Amino acid sequence: MDLELLKSLVVPAESKILLLVMDGLGGAPRQPGGPTELEAARTPNLDGLAARGVCGMLEIVGPGITPGSGPGHLALFGYDPLVHRIGRGVLEALGIGMELAPVDVAARGNFCTVDPAGRIVDRRAGRIPTSVCEEMAARLDGMQVPGATCIVRPVREHRFVVVFRGEGLGDALSETDPQRVGAEPMPVRALTSAAEATARAANAFVAEARRRLQDQPAANMVLLRGFASHPALPTFKDLYGLNAGAIAVYPMYRGLARLAGMAPLPTGPSVAEEFDALASHWAAYDFIYLHVKRTDTTGEDGTFEAKVAAIEEVDAQVPRALGLNPDVIVVTGDHSTPSALKGHSWHPVPFLLCARSCRPDAVQHFAEKTCVAGQYGRLRGPDLLPLILANAERLTKYGA
Amino acid sequence: MDLELLKSLVVPAESKILLLVMDGLGGAPRQPGGPTELEAARTPNLDGLAARGVCGMLEIVGPGITPGSGPGHLALFGYDPLVHRIGRGVLEALGIGMELAPVDVAARGNFCTVDPAGRIVDRRAGRIPTSVCEEMAARLDGMQVPGATCIVRPVREHRFVVVFRGEGLGDALSETDPQRVGAEPMPVRALTSAAEATARAANAFVAEARRRLQDQPAANMVLLRGFASHPALPTFKDLYGLNAGAIAVYPMYRGLARLAGMAPLPTGPSVAEEFDALASHWAAYDFIYLHVKRTDTTGEDGTFEAKVAAIEEVDAQVPRALGLNPDVIVVTGDHSTPSALKGHSWHPVPFLLCARSCRPDAVQHFAEKTCVAGQYGRLRGPDLLPLILANAERLTKYGA
Repeated sequence: MDLELLKSLVVPAESKILLLVMDGLGGAPRQPGGPTELEAARTPNLDGLAARGVCGMLEIVGPGITPGSGPGHLALFGYDPLVHRIGRGVLEALGIGMELAPVDVAARGNFCTVDPAGRIVDRRAGRIPTSVCEEMAARLDGMQVPGATCIVRPVREHRFVVVFRGEGLGDALSETDPQRVGAEPMPVRALTSAAEATARAANAFVAEARRRLQDQPAANMVLLRGFASHPALPTFKDLYGLNAGAIAVYPMYRGLARLAGMAPLPTGPSVAEEFDALASHWAAYDFIYLHVKRTDTTGEDGTFEAKVAAIEEVDAQVPRALGLNPDVIVVTGDHSTPSALKGHSWHPVPFLLCARSCRPDAVQHFAEKTCVAGQYGRLRGPDLLPLILANAERLTKYGA
Repeated sequence: MDLELLKSLVVPAESKILLLVMDGLGGAPRQPGGPTELEAARTPNLDGLAARGVCGMLEIVGPGITPGSGPGHLALFGYDPLVHRIGRGVLEALGIGMELAPVDVAARGNFCTVDPAGRIVDRRAGRIPTSVCEEMAARLDGMQVPGATCIVRPVREHRFVVVFRGEGLGDALSETDPQRVGAEPMPVRALTSAAEATARAANAFVAEARRRLQDQPAANMVLLRGFASHPALPTFKDLYGLNAGAIAVYPMYRGLARLAGMAPLPTGPSVAEEFDALASHWAAYDFIYLHVKRTDTTGEDGTFEAKVAAIEEVDAQVPRALGLNPDVIVVTGDHSTPSALKGHSWHPVPFLLCARSCRPDAVQHFAEKTCVAGQYGRLRGPDLLPLILANAERLTKYGA
């Protein structure tokens, strides 16, 4: 659904919405014929919601396409991830909690070592300690180059982020890392004419960085890649009039939510503390997104039992959310992370939606196999949000 | 499916098709865990069709989108309602049985009261009796303005319709109602350069209307809104070679069918009389659309039992339709109208299709929960018509 069209259908309402995202929720059997993690988990509370609600499987990006965390979340937030893209540089910046502005172009950086002739000796500067990275990032931070201010933040070891902030910048830029030692770093080239000024700004940054780092034994040069513009998404407030908040422990998810105009809310690190935060902030928001990470990390680790436990830990908190009387509660994931595959996967992700005005389907348990038979069958990821808004009675009819 | 592509696949056939539309068919439970109206209804004849046919749920416009009657019917007739739009003015004109031409722009009008300085005193002219509305509409009807003839018809109380008929008119026009008393009516403004001549025509109509109404104590001025061009749809005859007829009691549905090139057929007001009309006209048409309104009005009224009865009334007539030996019979609705919500809703609409050449699925009863598990799962509204044509053996294969 076109976002402008959707916006034109929005009507004011007092309803409150909870979107509970278990990262990497979808799973797969450990052995042929066995259950998935979600099927193996004891989830009486989620099952109850499924029985009273409608279910389906989300095709987050498209059949066979494994979503990264950025596209996965964009889709859940109603933005078509094939239209709105979040590049590497932006995701890296969000991952360290940087606040980006719509005019920004972000890039991932490595400190590296070059010889006196300028040829690369070590692409990772001997993996310098993070403390040195912090010191060198501070040397570069705030640099002014023609057309942009450069904001530089350390990540870990040799990795940093640089954000070029200025008007009219573009991200169609080549990277500078030749991917081998013995070669010189390449200049940044503009891949479109609109990015030429940005290429000059980036090359000015690299030249000045080399000058400021020349006394260093290891981190005496920089490599840049993953140039990416801020996606400048229309916000939940602009589109739907929703005052939205985000509860997430990891900075990247707080950053992704901020792109949609959600306010990151303070929370402790445990799932129980995230639900504490939900209770504390519930009154002040129309829409709260709550992100649970451990369902993904346990999947990535390949630990089936730990992922089952992570799911059960969330299920145990569900009654606390229901106690807040949300008008709409949705439970799903941003992609699948089967522990059998130890990574993100393309498998559709089960979802449930429970609301006063929904028409329950026959699904009685929240799991992959059962949700396939739900009312929504296989639903495109970005189509979930209009469904949420409809069930919150926040959309008027289309046409007379 | 692109209509031109579909047209290219059409082959001649003698088959006959019945599309039975129960307006607002989809429902919802009255209380948690209860049946929907359709699930509660005793429908042995529809169940028999479902058992011998294929079923699914129609997503008329898109997930979460509540269709108005215009988009709902366009979708059932195979036109993408996001591409082909029926504006307010056109729907209002169809609702009073006006015959529109493809060059027309229609608007909704209010008679209003202005003071001698031209400021609005009453936006609805004290809700004048319909008889006065008829008299004043007659005064304005047939007015010639630069570039258009103005056809004016009364609706009810202060409401009327004006149709501007002329070549090259556009509907990107602002409305004249300032939505408050004490202000003057606003001039019509063109929102695109293509609509400038139409704006001049509309303003000339308003000026002349004021002159012709100046002796009136209440209805001495007009307000216009909802300007809309005729959608100028390609017809069933042009696209599919179908000689199509429409049986509907309410003018709006007869008008919507006429947009698709269907001939409105005479009928009495009861469901039984509509099936009488079906029997009378069956021999002369390839395709008949039969519209039942009471399933929607009972839903809008919030009367669960009355909607159940309306469904059962239709079911009782089904054997008469089967006695005509249609090659394809389809039963569905243009949107859901759950009595629990007392209005149109976004919930998908069950459909069944029964034809000699269909491959029956496992569905044995015609109801929401059962149709979810049908062959077509959740089908886009405009995709139903190609399926009907295929089952009527009126489409050849695509590609060699």
